[in-house]
Amino acid sequence: MDLKHNFGAGPAKLPPAVLETARRQLLDYQGTGISVMEMSHRSKEFQTIASKCEQDLREILSISDNYAVLFMQGGATTQFSCVPLNINRSDISPRAAYIDTGFWSDRAIAEAKRLTKVEVIAESRSQSYRSLPLDLNAKLEAARERLADTQYLHFTDNETIHGIEFPPAYDFKNGDCPLISDMSSNIMSRQIDVSRYGLIYAGAQKNMGPSGLTIVIVRKDLIGLAHPQGPIPYLLDYKVLADNDSMANTPPTFAWYLCGLVCQWVKDQGGLAAIEAMNEEKAKILYQAIDESRLFENPVDPAYRSRMNVPFVIKRSDPDKKIEKAFLAQADKQGFIGLAGHRAVGGMRASLYNAVDLDSTKALCQLIRQFDKDFA
Amino acid sequence: MDLKHNFGAGPAKLPPAVLETARRQLLDYQGTGISVMEMSHRSKEFQTIASKCEQDLREILSISDNYAVLFMQGGATTQFSCVPLNINRSDISPRAAYIDTGFWSDRAIAEAKRLTKVEVIAESRSQSYRSLPLDLNAKLEAARERLADTQYLHFTDNETIHGIEFPPAYDFKNGDCPLISDMSSNIMSRQIDVSRYGLIYAGAQKNMGPSGLTIVIVRKDLIGLAHPQGPIPYLLDYKVLADNDSMANTPPTFAWYLCGLVCQWVKDQGGLAAIEAMNEEKAKILYQAIDESRLFENPVDPAYRSRMNVPFVIKRSDPDKKIEKAFLAQADKQGFIGLAGHRAVGGMRASLYNAVDLDSTKALCQLIRQFDKDFA
Repeated sequence: MDLKHNFGAGPAKLPPAVLETARRQLLDYQGTGISVMEMSHRSKEFQTIASKCEQDLREILSISDNYAVLFMQGGATTQFSCVPLNINRSDISPRAAYIDTGFWSDRAIAEAKRLTKVEVIAESRSQSYRSLPLDLNAKLEAARERLADTQYLHFTDNETIHGIEFPPAYDFKNGDCPLISDMSSNIMSRQIDVSRYGLIYAGAQKNMGPSGLTIVIVRKDLIGLAHPQGPIPYLLDYKVLADNDSMANTPPTFAWYLCGLVCQWVKDQGGLAAIEAMNEEKAKILYQAIDESRLFENPVDPAYRSRMNVPFVIKRSDPDKKIEKAFLAQADKQGFIGLAGHRAVGGMRASLYNAVDLDSTKALCQLIRQFDKDFA
Repeated sequence: MDLKHNFGAGPAKLPPAVLETARRQLLDYQGTGISVMEMSHRSKEFQTIASKCEQDLREILSISDNYAVLFMQGGATTQFSCVPLNINRSDISPRAAYIDTGFWSDRAIAEAKRLTKVEVIAESRSQSYRSLPLDLNAKLEAARERLADTQYLHFTDNETIHGIEFPPAYDFKNGDCPLISDMSSNIMSRQIDVSRYGLIYAGAQKNMGPSGLTIVIVRKDLIGLAHPQGPIPYLLDYKVLADNDSMANTPPTFAWYLCGLVCQWVKDQGGLAAIEAMNEEKAKILYQAIDESRLFENPVDPAYRSRMNVPFVIKRSDPDKKIEKAFLAQADKQGFIGLAGHRAVGGMRASLYNAVDLDSTKALCQLIRQFDKDFA
């Protein structure tokens, strides 16, 4: 096969070493004579796979014992429901605060509004989602008293479609209001201080494994608060998952196993410090190639550009999207995959998840430069 | 590796041909240069995989156009919540009827009671779940008027733990009350008349693929009835799934692909008629070996013995489970996997799902006969 450069937004490229191991073990996991897919989730072998994955995740992200790590199904979209259904301290008003920074925070807000009372504290929709909300922390400060009586403050750490990311260690002025972050598209891409969060959730299919697995990291005092009046579906209750080591029913065992292989790979790379440095390098050279071109531009405020998802558009008039189509055709011919933008916004997008290597990123920069030169 | 005989209850044995294909395609699906796991669910390639799987499923089970086939996450346990949350016709009282025939119907009932009003029409708990409820159809007839004003009648077609299965084409006297069946452990194991059902659901990890995928076959008039007053989590709403071809969010793509390979394998075997005949043969010889032994017995009413899950126990006094342990140790030594009974009931259990072949079943019969001879 020809070498492909997979810049898809998810399900996305996996580390080749992970897929090689999965292939080698597919019919016979470590001499058991059967596939991981054919094992009881309660077997000794799978219990070892599952707990090793959790341990490695805890090590990689420095997750302390006062947090539970849950392995769930249903993707981040299911968490849009789980968060408002679960986080309901009885001594705090039944309302939640959200920050709106793009397509996915908007989806989270829409679902939360169906399930609880929502205040959108700050938004960048009015800036066409090209930046973070203006004066975000001033707005949080102004809402301080209300936030003290609000169940949680939710934000989307990286907007996969609009290509906006919060800066590392952004100092939210959330007071004691638990901070909840959708990190689906940037978890394990940089070092984070988990203790700053009440809850972090992420679909696995960007940086952690295949689709069909969702990781929830939740501070233990936020478990068991599901509102008793509006019964929560059994398997959406964090307490059920936590009390049963995420095996209240049959978990997605093969996805869990692959997530474990990815965690091992991250450790083999040198952990998040090394991963983070590599991701910064990749993003730096790609944004540079776009910024230096006469044809392309990235529409996002440079202070908040995503290191994971880089949308770019044709900056001159492009009737019938002729230039865009020519670029995507050229990319396709040269073995690039997944460069078309999300159908909600169009244009192009390159996703630079952990498994996308520097060589592929350099090849994309070269494609952009060559096309720019030939066309402009 | 040594040949293993995998009789696990699920996640369970998959057809070797399916695993071979998955291994061959793991790093490069049909010349795309990437794994199925690395593909966008909206790519042309995955759309073809997904729709081919649905078509084959429709062909295998003769599912007509007035049924939707949904590909969901969360296992049958999530369906225990989805069914009462979704099936709520406004012109019918908000109540549901259940038949209790074992561990799993009991679990379905417990969850339904949290979400709606439940009437257990008939039960075999009082017979220690060793048979179907006495006079089941007489009880349904007696409840006829109430059933006409009941949302649905739910039953578990095969009880994985207690080893009880409804006979083929059991003629439920349910009138117009939609019949809803949990077929997690016997779907695709025999021919069924889908038109008899309002809804069928099944976790994939017995006869259809790996864990992490759930199939829901639902009559279209039963979609869109979720009660507006108690908001249903977005991704548990059948209408959301149906309106978005099961891609309202990222589906478990690799599990879906494997389900497609299993469907192709079923067709290659000659479809459900051939599969059913093979399953009957396997069950027949295994029950015979147990019945003829002096040491073992199957506790279930012979009229309702499961063809899929065969529990068996030591029929003489067995202090400290010495005989049981010796049998399981012997089985382990000879390469048998998954023969310990479920922790809820103990004893032994052999699951005879589609992928378990006649040779393995004969080997198990031989093990039982030999152990019986040596020990008894």
